[in-house]
Amino acid sequence: MINNKINLGNTEIDKFLEKHHDKKVVVVQGLGFVGAVMSIVVANSDKNKYAVIGVDLPSRKAVIDALNSGEFPIQSSDNKVFEYFTNTKRRNNFYATSDDYAYEKADVVIIDINLDVAKVTGQDKKLEGFSVIMDGFKAAMRTIASRCKQDVLILVETTVPPGTTQKIVRPIFEEEFEKRGLPPSFKIGHSYERVMPGPGYVDSIKNFYRVFSGINEESADAVEEFLHTIISTDEYPLTRLGNTNATEMSKVLENSFRAMNIAFMQEWTEFAESAGVNLYEVVSAIRMRPTHQNIMRPGLGVGGYCLTKDPLLASWASQELFNSISLEQSEKAVSINDTMPLHTHKIFKNHFKGNTKGKKVLILGVSYLQNVGDTRYTPVELIYDKLLKDGVELVLHDPFVPFWPERNLKIDASDDVFEDSYDAIIIGTPHDTYVKEGKLDALLSNSAKLVVFDSHGIIEDDLRMKHDKHEFKIIGRGDV
Amino acid sequence: MINNKINLGNTEIDKFLEKHHDKKVVVVQGLGFVGAVMSIVVANSDKNKYAVIGVDLPSRKAVIDALNSGEFPIQSSDNKVFEYFTNTKRRNNFYATSDDYAYEKADVVIIDINLDVAKVTGQDKKLEGFSVIMDGFKAAMRTIASRCKQDVLILVETTVPPGTTQKIVRPIFEEEFEKRGLPPSFKIGHSYERVMPGPGYVDSIKNFYRVFSGINEESADAVEEFLHTIISTDEYPLTRLGNTNATEMSKVLENSFRAMNIAFMQEWTEFAESAGVNLYEVVSAIRMRPTHQNIMRPGLGVGGYCLTKDPLLASWASQELFNSISLEQSEKAVSINDTMPLHTHKIFKNHFKGNTKGKKVLILGVSYLQNVGDTRYTPVELIYDKLLKDGVELVLHDPFVPFWPERNLKIDASDDVFEDSYDAIIIGTPHDTYVKEGKLDALLSNSAKLVVFDSHGIIEDDLRMKHDKHEFKIIGRGDV
Repeated sequence: MINNKINLGNTEIDKFLEKHHDKKVVVVQGLGFVGAVMSIVVANSDKNKYAVIGVDLPSRKAVIDALNSGEFPIQSSDNKVFEYFTNTKRRNNFYATSDDYAYEKADVVIIDINLDVAKVTGQDKKLEGFSVIMDGFKAAMRTIASRCKQDVLILVETTVPPGTTQKIVRPIFEEEFEKRGLPPSFKIGHSYERVMPGPGYVDSIKNFYRVFSGINEESADAVEEFLHTIISTDEYPLTRLGNTNATEMSKVLENSFRAMNIAFMQEWTEFAESAGVNLYEVVSAIRMRPTHQNIMRPGLGVGGYCLTKDPLLASWASQELFNSISLEQSEKAVSINDTMPLHTHKIFKNHFKGNTKGKKVLILGVSYLQNVGDTRYTPVELIYDKLLKDGVELVLHDPFVPFWPERNLKIDASDDVFEDSYDAIIIGTPHDTYVKEGKLDALLSNSAKLVVFDSHGIIEDDLRMKHDKHEFKIIGRGDV
Repeated sequence: MINNKINLGNTEIDKFLEKHHDKKVVVVQGLGFVGAVMSIVVANSDKNKYAVIGVDLPSRKAVIDALNSGEFPIQSSDNKVFEYFTNTKRRNNFYATSDDYAYEKADVVIIDINLDVAKVTGQDKKLEGFSVIMDGFKAAMRTIASRCKQDVLILVETTVPPGTTQKIVRPIFEEEFEKRGLPPSFKIGHSYERVMPGPGYVDSIKNFYRVFSGINEESADAVEEFLHTIISTDEYPLTRLGNTNATEMSKVLENSFRAMNIAFMQEWTEFAESAGVNLYEVVSAIRMRPTHQNIMRPGLGVGGYCLTKDPLLASWASQELFNSISLEQSEKAVSINDTMPLHTHKIFKNHFKGNTKGKKVLILGVSYLQNVGDTRYTPVELIYDKLLKDGVELVLHDPFVPFWPERNLKIDASDDVFEDSYDAIIIGTPHDTYVKEGKLDALLSNSAKLVVFDSHGIIEDDLRMKHDKHEFKIIGRGDV
């Protein structure tokens, strides 16, 4: 059985490792959204090669306890999470702790802690400035460097400003090793994760393309060898890039590309609405060209942990670590995306000619991602806040979000809310349950005349025609 | 034989049509880059259904004469152009003219005339403003409307500001028909072409996806029926969109998407260079994700007739025809792309520490597109002009461009230039002949030490290593 006492220090860790003296020790630093699943993927390595220790801060005791008592701390619709975690328990090769002593035992340390951006925003979430919060990350590196084995492999997976591994992590290790009277015998590599919540949670690590790099040839080789043991590299071959700046840039560039393509459509959404054009059918037609398949559809806005900050990490790095230009288009993309929900709000207000006070509105979906319960930086936040300020009486529904931590709110995940009557409905998240699986259809059938604001264009003409006593305002269509 | 006398008016046109009294008459207005090939595609319709008359301005007599005397007026590497034109001559079902009388005979008029943007630029081609030149287009519509058959089908293929068919073309026809005492019995549709120069010139009409629309149901039906007879719609199904604004928007949106994605990479190119990152390998790695396949590579700049103006047509339409917002990101994309060659120029100047006067430089490639001779708005223009001003002695080579009309220059298409010696080489266009087919390799082998500025990242490491006595400055790589 996995030991469910934690933080007893050396004794507990040593006891755990005694059982696994034939295995390499992998420490995963950070047991959040990425680290938790990374831990069980490593613990499930093909030949049971690894003993895995997950380390997080003492303040995260609840997560550590949950993991050690056999409960996976993150809700997931992915069956593989359950399967992998069960196998981990069977193997008994994972232990969670907040004791830094773990680093002394590690052959590999995987860095999965967060690195955040603090945005300075004005009215209506308008981006006015930002800073990258490096202190926690740096301190964590220093802790590891001061205690790790001489020949440790450090694998940075955190999304960092390009240049971080080379210009921040490496010097910290050099300094600490010098203090310890050691030659710089560590190996440091970078290989970013692309973990996505939802039904492919495990696969987003196990079955996904990876790029990797190292601060030197030896480091890159070590990362490659390690990744081969935990990722399905036959099907998803690894790509080695020239240096750690390149892999770091790859991650923030791919997210900036996406953020920018979403932002790009916002102006066209307004243009389409004013020209009576159904932008969804236009986008579908354009996507038939392989060179244009990545063009985005209109939407409520952008959420999640990556697209909302990665372009800023990049622009910060360009200026602060390389004394180069600011990435204006990428910053602008974040700025546009952050305020995108104001567009739906404007259409809402226009419809009611400003008389929104006391209106009863049902928001369907709070998560930032469809069919997944993830509220991190969800765009529903902004429209929720605006409507609340307008004096609107709000009812929230999301089958995947029983609790909304950012607003400290219980959310109705049951169907009770569909029994009530409303002045308007706003589609916050395009969960399948609402349109594809008929919830909205049933609700409209049972409702007196109301207005549906569809920020995601999921309502098709047949549904509108069936319910023509109701009004429909669809973002990115000519009839809003 | 095709009659090679032109502009004899009614007699000649009537004589031509007498031979084809069993056929529908299609008039193609505009015999430029699109209209010329459109004409022969229509003339090659499956069941020899059409007699085709091409109309252009009297000032384009040379083109008209060429077509009638059996010479296709546009150089092309596409064998199908020759094949289709030969078959047209055999069928003897195409006649070119500048006589508007043709419109009186047309069952279908296809509009393939240009609609241009006049850019106001400051120093170094910096975009400071622009206007859309509508007068010629409007006048052409009025001419047709004043002479066409009552039940004519007008098919607009020109890339126009969204709203043009509905708000400009239709009212002109209504006015002219009213003057003629006729009911508005015309049909007007819009279906844009995606004609690309190069080896797929004919296929870019014949075998390509199309969207279409009409000002009413009847018009859209007529366009659909017509397109079925000239395009391989089994393999490339047609998509009907809701209104003409939608199809017009589709064209300028797809080109704006591409222009913006090119512009987006410019800042990242500078960032990559300052961070010692090979952006080409990063882009290749990112493109492995299907959601990111449309991310662009660094380059010298953007040329051609579409990407350099279509975003502006859109922004103009939004403001002028729909009283809506300016499309700032799309305008910005054009502005960034127009000045992109300055980056290569800067790297060139930096390398020579400003001492560029009298340096002898070979520019390889003048065309804006690889393996094709098309100099319209080529980005080579700007760097050529800048270098000339710097006092650089320039030699140009392009196997596809014997003459550069925009600079009124004969270009060496032979290999004689490779015999000479230079201080530097600039890759202007990534034609296969230079790297893939070994021309540059041979040139470097025979040259004393020089510097190669590769604006397209086509020089791989093996070529660099082989010629390590030379210096290489590759845009978007860390070693520029």
